Amino acid sequence: MRILITSGGTSEKIDDVRAITNHSSGKLGKAIAESFAKEDVIIDLITTKQAIQPVGPTIQQHYIETTAELEQTLKKLMTEHSYDVVIHSMAVSDFTPESSVTMEDLETVIASKPSDLPEALAMIEADRTEKKISSDTDRLVIILKKNPKIIALIKQLQPETILVGFKLLVDVPLVELLTVAQKSLEKNQADFILANDLSEISGEKHHGYLINKQHKVKEAHTKTEIAELIKDEVMKLEETK
Amino acid sequence: MRILITSGGTSEKIDDVRAITNHSSGKLGKAIAESFAKEDVIIDLITTKQAIQPVGPTIQQHYIETTAELEQTLKKLMTEHSYDVVIHSMAVSDFTPESSVTMEDLETVIASKPSDLPEALAMIEADRTEKKISSDTDRLVIILKKNPKIIALIKQLQPETILVGFKLLVDVPLVELLTVAQKSLEKNQADFILANDLSEISGEKHHGYLINKQHKVKEAHTKTEIAELIKDEVMKLEETK
Repeated sequence: MRILITSGGTSEKIDDVRAITNHSSGKLGKAIAESFAKEDVIIDLITTKQAIQPVGPTIQQHYIETTAELEQTLKKLMTEHSYDVVIHSMAVSDFTPESSVTMEDLETVIASKPSDLPEALAMIEADRTEKKISSDTDRLVIILKKNPKIIALIKQLQPETILVGFKLLVDVPLVELLTVAQKSLEKNQADFILANDLSEISGEKHHGYLINKQHKVKEAHTKTEIAELIKDEVMKLEETK
Repeated sequence: MRILITSGGTSEKIDDVRAITNHSSGKLGKAIAESFAKEDVIIDLITTKQAIQPVGPTIQQHYIETTAELEQTLKKLMTEHSYDVVIHSMAVSDFTPESSVTMEDLETVIASKPSDLPEALAMIEADRTEKKISSDTDRLVIILKKNPKIIALIKQLQPETILVGFKLLVDVPLVELLTVAQKSLEKNQADFILANDLSEISGEKHHGYLINKQHKVKEAHTKTEIAELIKDEVMKLEETK
């Protein structure tokens, strides 16, 4: 059995010294990887240097930083190997910096009434020669453009793999969390979505809801419990295939 | 002897799951702290959970995340204790998120011709109820406002302390690096500035220039060399006081 796990959080460069990062320690991905490693499963782990790392003789790390690098590495691995399971727990930046300008630049551009504001701002950025944005201004404006949805690629690349996705929301009612998770499951052809709410995560305490295609929900209360629940449910589904 | 060292990089929250972070591992701050710890100096270290930590029985950590927390902790420590030396090696975010809106929001606000664009955008942000910015849009716009300059506070709080500041630029000519460093020294009443260029830093290799008030420059080529150079020069100056 060979599985692919993504873990940690991507970071998107603003300039050579600043980046937009995602809140993710990699602890849950570590717990999941170690849970499968106990069963002698071969694991490819796409992760970051900042994430907490699992240990195990069958775990092979592949390091990335940005969403673009994640996409590239995921495509490469999924072309080289056939995976029984893909567990995509990495917190992926929905957006990446397209341009950064000063508030004065923004006001100048607005005054020129461009037909395409984002494009006009990107041109200002392209004209700048410094590699680190000057701090000689009161306000900076960063324009971010949407990243491709990585989870959507997985079943396109390998329709037969068992896909476990993740959905993290912040302080929402349970019915909203489960509804959003179910939509993500359908949209991305996932077999499971682990839904969780940041307000219910602290240290090892981690409240998670694992939803399957039949809309059945199973709960877990710690990172270790979530990892074991995912492993057990995935193994059961794998046996019936 | 009691000294205060700041190390690592601040991070500024965009929302509950995203942040703007500074490129800084804390390795140089660790080397500096350990270099002084060998001399039995009492060290207060303001740092982050993500930074690499020095070890030593005389080192006391104080953890912060944002620039606002850094300011608060620094003021508290500098009110409670008198420091012989302050070494401010932390990479501090020049800017912090003020508001985040969609590109559609920005275009709507522009069309309404507000007298104060940043204020109008902050109002849109204040009206939003979600704690995590929706990813249902093609482009996001983040407005950042300038943070207070932390280094400028140090001599205001304790005029007698020996202050070592840092200046990091990216791929500039040496004369520009040294000119900018010297301006920072004068503006912030620093006794030394360690000037360095990101293009000359990789792993333990770290090219640094230590400038003093007499405009004398001493070079070092690794993090350990920089740490020893700072310690030696600071100790020499301390003896003449």
